[in-house]
Amino acid sequence: MNQDALKQIAAREAVKFVKDDMVVGLGTGSTVKYMIQALGKRLREKNLHIVGIPTSNRTARRARRAGIPIKNIDDIDHIDLTIDGADQVDKNYQGIKGGGIAHLWEKIVAINSTKNIWIVDETKLTNHLGSFPLPLEVIPYGSSQLFVRLKKMGYHPTFRMSHGRHILTHSRNYIIDLNLGQIDHPHHLSKQLDEMTGIVEHGLFLDIVNTVIVGHPDGPEIINAR
Amino acid sequence: MNQDALKQIAAREAVKFVKDDMVVGLGTGSTVKYMIQALGKRLREKNLHIVGIPTSNRTARRARRAGIPIKNIDDIDHIDLTIDGADQVDKNYQGIKGGGIAHLWEKIVAINSTKNIWIVDETKLTNHLGSFPLPLEVIPYGSSQLFVRLKKMGYHPTFRMSHGRHILTHSRNYIIDLNLGQIDHPHHLSKQLDEMTGIVEHGLFLDIVNTVIVGHPDGPEIINAR
Repeated sequence: MNQDALKQIAAREAVKFVKDDMVVGLGTGSTVKYMIQALGKRLREKNLHIVGIPTSNRTARRARRAGIPIKNIDDIDHIDLTIDGADQVDKNYQGIKGGGIAHLWEKIVAINSTKNIWIVDETKLTNHLGSFPLPLEVIPYGSSQLFVRLKKMGYHPTFRMSHGRHILTHSRNYIIDLNLGQIDHPHHLSKQLDEMTGIVEHGLFLDIVNTVIVGHPDGPEIINAR
Repeated sequence: MNQDALKQIAAREAVKFVKDDMVVGLGTGSTVKYMIQALGKRLREKNLHIVGIPTSNRTARRARRAGIPIKNIDDIDHIDLTIDGADQVDKNYQGIKGGGIAHLWEKIVAINSTKNIWIVDETKLTNHLGSFPLPLEVIPYGSSQLFVRLKKMGYHPTFRMSHGRHILTHSRNYIIDLNLGQIDHPHHLSKQLDEMTGIVEHGLFLDIVNTVIVGHPDGPEIINAR
């Protein structure tokens, strides 16, 4: 069974958590794409009324096409549930997100949500975070100085580029990926990066997810993380 | 003697620290305006060659007019000395900056400088920080949610507006001012704000300044802070 099929297994299971009248954060990425399709279908079939809060312009377009009403995060007063993907999830249900450049907006939606569900195919599970590069959204001004600093710290930074130009996030910032191999102390690293000037947000999502839904070939696995 | 005259006293003293071949960070604000004028004059009179690193577009324009060659922060490999103002300086030489919306770029230049000088008139000195509002540069996306969060924390936030619209920083972010009255534990507050998603940078400048030059009516006072 290929990875896309596993993503769909997790995505279809997740939308069962969406109930009538909910405000639902909509993540970004290839697994979320399937979730949005499944959610649109569920709303039509069950005649549910919800409001979706997109974490990227891409997700906003997909939600509109799927018939999901959307609002801006600053036009609502709470989010009941957010469903998002993750690039890596460790055995303590800490995660790395940001392969798709949307981790800043995703984290803003996540921390404002009563409950967070991550949908992943089984290849995303790992004992230790870090084999997936850790993305940093950084302010362009001074980013070369920050890059040198991260290099001296031994964090093996690379700017994320496309056709020789910096990739820009929705907030018009750059991305630096840290190639760490293995992150032994995620909380320590998180605090260290939080305190560095010029880093807007890193892709460590710690103590955030409540439920992880894993797509296995034999069906979805629902894990209560916290 | 009025405040502008005191600012000029500090500003003229500070430029004496600028030597030939230095890379000099140029802050932003009304005191820095006088410093840039004095620095341009000094370069001409002493035939000094320096490179200035501006912390705002306003400062870049002023430096060009004063005949100071400038470069972008990402086009140099070090900064010898930065001269900037401050909105408040306490008895431990910790400061608040950002009344002029430039604190993010100012902090990026400051942390990349070997030495930092602050030039202030004597009215900026205080026992405790906090009677001056503490500025936060924040990501527009989700800023209303962040505002509610800060309000619940008792930090009395206000969005900085002009003619009914959000003031935008150079990095196209919003400013929220925290009206704290008195900050008892600046380091604790700094860490707390660093860890909050959506806050790009706060205006607490801790353990950064090396020399404070204070403009008094009877002349400049030079304080070695650290």
